[in-house]
Amino acid sequence: MPLESGFRALTSIEDALNVFLSSFDPLSRTETVRLEDAGERVLALDVRAPRDVPHYDRSAMDGYAVMAADTFGSSKDAGAILKLTNADHIESGECRLVHTGSPIPRGADAVIMLEYVEVMGDGIETLAQVSPGQNVGPRGEDVKRGGIVFKKGRQLKPSDIGLLASMGLTGVSVYEKPRVLIVPTGEEIVPRGKEPGPGQMNESNGVMNYLYVKRFGGIPAVHGIVSDKKEALAAALDEGATYDLVVTTGGSSVGRRDLIVDVLSSMGKTLVHGVAIKPGKPVALGLIEAKGKKVPIVCLPGYPAACAIDAMVFVDPAVKKSGRMPPTQYRTQRAILTRKIYSEPGFRTYTRVSIEDGRATPLRTKGAGILSSISQADGYVVTPADVEGREAGEEVEVVFLE
Amino acid sequence: MPLESGFRALTSIEDALNVFLSSFDPLSRTETVRLEDAGERVLALDVRAPRDVPHYDRSAMDGYAVMAADTFGSSKDAGAILKLTNADHIESGECRLVHTGSPIPRGADAVIMLEYVEVMGDGIETLAQVSPGQNVGPRGEDVKRGGIVFKKGRQLKPSDIGLLASMGLTGVSVYEKPRVLIVPTGEEIVPRGKEPGPGQMNESNGVMNYLYVKRFGGIPAVHGIVSDKKEALAAALDEGATYDLVVTTGGSSVGRRDLIVDVLSSMGKTLVHGVAIKPGKPVALGLIEAKGKKVPIVCLPGYPAACAIDAMVFVDPAVKKSGRMPPTQYRTQRAILTRKIYSEPGFRTYTRVSIEDGRATPLRTKGAGILSSISQADGYVVTPADVEGREAGEEVEVVFLE
Repeated sequence: MPLESGFRALTSIEDALNVFLSSFDPLSRTETVRLEDAGERVLALDVRAPRDVPHYDRSAMDGYAVMAADTFGSSKDAGAILKLTNADHIESGECRLVHTGSPIPRGADAVIMLEYVEVMGDGIETLAQVSPGQNVGPRGEDVKRGGIVFKKGRQLKPSDIGLLASMGLTGVSVYEKPRVLIVPTGEEIVPRGKEPGPGQMNESNGVMNYLYVKRFGGIPAVHGIVSDKKEALAAALDEGATYDLVVTTGGSSVGRRDLIVDVLSSMGKTLVHGVAIKPGKPVALGLIEAKGKKVPIVCLPGYPAACAIDAMVFVDPAVKKSGRMPPTQYRTQRAILTRKIYSEPGFRTYTRVSIEDGRATPLRTKGAGILSSISQADGYVVTPADVEGREAGEEVEVVFLE
Repeated sequence: MPLESGFRALTSIEDALNVFLSSFDPLSRTETVRLEDAGERVLALDVRAPRDVPHYDRSAMDGYAVMAADTFGSSKDAGAILKLTNADHIESGECRLVHTGSPIPRGADAVIMLEYVEVMGDGIETLAQVSPGQNVGPRGEDVKRGGIVFKKGRQLKPSDIGLLASMGLTGVSVYEKPRVLIVPTGEEIVPRGKEPGPGQMNESNGVMNYLYVKRFGGIPAVHGIVSDKKEALAAALDEGATYDLVVTTGGSSVGRRDLIVDVLSSMGKTLVHGVAIKPGKPVALGLIEAKGKKVPIVCLPGYPAACAIDAMVFVDPAVKKSGRMPPTQYRTQRAILTRKIYSEPGFRTYTRVSIEDGRATPLRTKGAGILSSISQADGYVVTPADVEGREAGEEVEVVFLE
């Protein structure tokens, strides 16, 4: 049920994400990267084994490679005497010492374990019989040449890449990472390195989102600061159409918030404007339609705390969908609240907390001391839209969003 | 209590980490990086505010900036008439519209909220009195110029960096990342791109550890493959003394395992050789003493599953200590075991599992099909050294080590 609140209507987070994420397709561009650069990348093709694994018959035990027929009839009372050799090829009457994983010499077809052997000078006596193939891992036992090792769509871990390396691969075909244009907007924003006047501030949301987008798995680029003028915003969005995703920041006052949404509506489609989330309510989601393309766009509010939450709730899943990556799984921890959390029913509320000894203390979010408060934050307590506040002493889940 | 097991004695994981991590100091080299490059970096100095925050007196409310004295005596029945202006400076008898966060015009010393005002043509009537300073956030209210914003040793999050940017900083002094030399060893290892003969395999632990070290927060470099010869190993370790940490891989057979430890003992100190961990028992930890330096070294086993576990258990904390980073907090999930886990008492055992619908299934770790088994792994169940196996149906914690 939409809430009225200065916006035409507020959309729930779930509805907002559903309508937004279903409005665009993931990337299909692919590239081949070296294994060194394949960490966290998503396979664009099934990976097939370039050779049998193992690529040779190997011993499954420490023991002696033999011709099984030579051991027939051996028992603990009486066995066959076999001559030790170091050759790559054994004849009947010979054996060779092998370790687990060693190749089986040609001619041999079984391995007799150390404990069933009596070593004597330059030979052994077999005290048990082995059958052909016994204790031998045949070539291709793990994976046959051409067999699928990893399926298309898998996000590669370091140990996956080690496995691919061991099979002789040097590179893999992966989906490109989404390219994301970050556009800081606002008349009051001045570039870093320039002294801001009263009411002005240095650009900060751009660099914050640059770091978030990198972490989410995208390739960020930061546009110059764009003033609150329709033509300038339209030009930036038009440029954004050459990217895979656009993120604007700023426009926190009501008049300006409407401006970017007006521009977006005139150049494409505003899918969502105003979401039942606190902080972060003024976010807008839509599609730029320009240069014959439809490119998703997230318009983040300028208030830094709201900007950060909306980046994690909306930009992260957009980058993941675009790049075909699995959703981020944030680490969580149970903790006892030291103070009541106030939240407005109808809004999912993210409350910054500090954690000490399993106790979570909500931090101030307004007025004097907010900066030092932020610097103590460890994580967030998320209060669902259908819950009204959380009591002191209540056990809550703290999410480590950063 | 040390266990005898082919090694002189096995050390517990805790003891091994204690003796190893206390044997070397963290880095003290620092560098200045741009904010764009400061994500996850550790501050080498307290960060002090380069100016007051806010750097101007700002309104704490939507309302009108006034001289408080002009409102004295105002009530809902009768108030003062003030003329609206847009000037940066107001005189007695004037007021100016301000929003939350707007600068207060010179001359004004208070803000009267919208709801206590009647707007009339080009002026307002004040329907309440305000005292000097009321609804004004004075310059420096958050942080005074020179005040500490973040303490030395803090690892920077994207929102921290946004905050530093908003205060006018463009770069920060951070500790250097540890430089880690990875040395793959083994007669049977051939470079990627070269076809391995029977019993040989392509180098894979080097690239796997390259990716791990990067993730742990270090700067990895991979040495060429080093043969199992004392002189060659000694030369590589000597080269390693110009790095902050050395990681060797390989030497999985007993003879070769001793070789690298022999070389280490002759060039420095072997602190630990053999740890009560499965897989990963053959790990060795020590210090190279060369070129007038003491450099920590982790000798990882060659078996890939053991190599990966030891990297997370020993290399990760070494990189973190060296770079003054907080320990990795891995994500965990409770799950019900579908099958029994066998573990050897006295060893902390890491069992690969796949997870589906809250149920964890242990994966095969040996013999045919091990590769396809690894490709299904989601996480690990850790069985402590004093627990003998885990039963089917038992609730366990799955750790997402990768």
